[in-house]
Amino acid sequence: MKLKTLEEEELISAIRREYSELSPEVIVGIGDDAAVIKFGKKHLIVTKDVLLEGVHFLVNLHPPYLLGRKSLYVNLSDIAAMGGVSKYSLLGLGLPPKTDPDWLKEYLSGFKSAADEQGVSLVGGDVSESKRISISVSVIGEGKKIIQRNGAEEEHLIFVSGSLGDAAQGLILLKKGYRLGDDERADVFLKAFLDPCPPVSLGSELSRFNAASSMIDVSDGLSVDLHHLCKESGVGAEIYVDKLPLSPEINRFQKRPYRLALHGGEDYQLLFTVPSHSLDSIEKLKKKYRITFIGKIIKEKRILTVDRRGKRKPLEIQGYQHFKKSKT
Amino acid sequence: MKLKTLEEEELISAIRREYSELSPEVIVGIGDDAAVIKFGKKHLIVTKDVLLEGVHFLVNLHPPYLLGRKSLYVNLSDIAAMGGVSKYSLLGLGLPPKTDPDWLKEYLSGFKSAADEQGVSLVGGDVSESKRISISVSVIGEGKKIIQRNGAEEEHLIFVSGSLGDAAQGLILLKKGYRLGDDERADVFLKAFLDPCPPVSLGSELSRFNAASSMIDVSDGLSVDLHHLCKESGVGAEIYVDKLPLSPEINRFQKRPYRLALHGGEDYQLLFTVPSHSLDSIEKLKKKYRITFIGKIIKEKRILTVDRRGKRKPLEIQGYQHFKKSKT
Repeated sequence: MKLKTLEEEELISAIRREYSELSPEVIVGIGDDAAVIKFGKKHLIVTKDVLLEGVHFLVNLHPPYLLGRKSLYVNLSDIAAMGGVSKYSLLGLGLPPKTDPDWLKEYLSGFKSAADEQGVSLVGGDVSESKRISISVSVIGEGKKIIQRNGAEEEHLIFVSGSLGDAAQGLILLKKGYRLGDDERADVFLKAFLDPCPPVSLGSELSRFNAASSMIDVSDGLSVDLHHLCKESGVGAEIYVDKLPLSPEINRFQKRPYRLALHGGEDYQLLFTVPSHSLDSIEKLKKKYRITFIGKIIKEKRILTVDRRGKRKPLEIQGYQHFKKSKT
Repeated sequence: MKLKTLEEEELISAIRREYSELSPEVIVGIGDDAAVIKFGKKHLIVTKDVLLEGVHFLVNLHPPYLLGRKSLYVNLSDIAAMGGVSKYSLLGLGLPPKTDPDWLKEYLSGFKSAADEQGVSLVGGDVSESKRISISVSVIGEGKKIIQRNGAEEEHLIFVSGSLGDAAQGLILLKKGYRLGDDERADVFLKAFLDPCPPVSLGSELSRFNAASSMIDVSDGLSVDLHHLCKESGVGAEIYVDKLPLSPEINRFQKRPYRLALHGGEDYQLLFTVPSHSLDSIEKLKKKYRITFIGKIIKEKRILTVDRRGKRKPLEIQGYQHFKKSKT
């Protein structure tokens, strides 16, 4: 048996089983966007993401400055999805000996720009030689009220930030040969993929308002991440397809944009559920953030799409997935 | 200009300069074994190490169970070198699709055995597909009195734990075709390389007794790591070569074992300096740990070896270095 036949979910379940006995300070362990540890009177939130050349990015397609930004932001997104605030980062770089120092300078400069934007300090890391570029970033944040994946209940409403499918559309355009600056209409999508800007402050505001019962960031695609959230909460969901937030320009490039919105990865938006008594807080947050109501949690443990005619059908989970990648 | 002409030390200096403005809670940033952050009333100590197939380990030479142990222990060594106690870990794995699930099972089982031995919880991580195996481990620890690299002063005595050169000898034997279990006399060295056991509790005891003025773990070799320690402290050192602790069996395999002791990497022993008023504490600790006096800090900023006839000569820093790897 080889790894490709061993489902990633099985692998993660196996690791979780192995490590099920956690010390009492570990409030959230394996299986959420980030781990949460009680540390003195505070909650420490920790996450790690690995970006590998040829798997998560292509050196010739990803400008190093933007790759630096993205490699930090994908981690900030995980901390935000727990309702936390990112504080510190560690950077592990594996670099081939032939790496151009200008590439590295640009990469570090991009990483720093994202760190400065979000008030995150780079406190350490590890540099080593490698065959291909390998980037490993860990981020430590803190939070008071932690929002996990497992708090969704029947009748809670499902919301998502920003728009969906943009990053997947960006990758398609990138593969077709579009480059930043070539075409204004394409740039919005290229940027979504190359330089994602997760709404990190929304995560901590949802925590402060105590507004979300569960949350996850949309990194693998709505269908996959909603599945994770529902599984952890022991519930199901229905998604109103015509409510999915799209960028208006996507229709220029896509005949079936909803497919990308449902299954496209790397949007790094926040997907969260809201109990009815917290809808007022969402209305307030809507003044500041693009937040869209897209569905409802149901008791039955399955995920359905509902089209505008009211027709229900099961949402396939194995959809469009350009990266084989999953959080443990 | 290519990376190989850009010295790693320069690279790390460049990153340090870029990130010199740290937030006030960051007590130790880039440039020590681990970073230290004030978090509430405690000190958080964080470190990260990346192990890459073909660079830091060879899949066919490193039994996965031992690789799992080593990938955690190299990080625990960094936390120990700050005088801290390791508490939590994050594991990032990049795995080729063809990875044998038994390999993975063994790896995880080894990681867990090391974690259990040292009371460390695995709290999260990231699994993704990659071309070659890539392992990234982060560890979070805590500590009260932090021991940095920069506290060594003139006349402080230099000590090292365990014996030196064993891991380098192990790698030599491994490359020659020796395998664990083939030859009892070789096994001690093979184990030192494949399954290092850093004296992690010694680090925290030195902190508790307030006995060490500076400390670093010997990962790149004594000459390189002593250079780091002296540079950070703004001092020099003299090393009494005939005092270097060797495994008695090393003479069977090596004509010049002191060369390995001075320049061989991956021993993961603790190198620390002690002011005269703390020598009583060291005597107490000697009952529990193998600790050897090997030299003295001098004012002049250079590192000398002293042979048994009293002949001094500069210690070359670029010695035997099988891995191009350095902490930022």
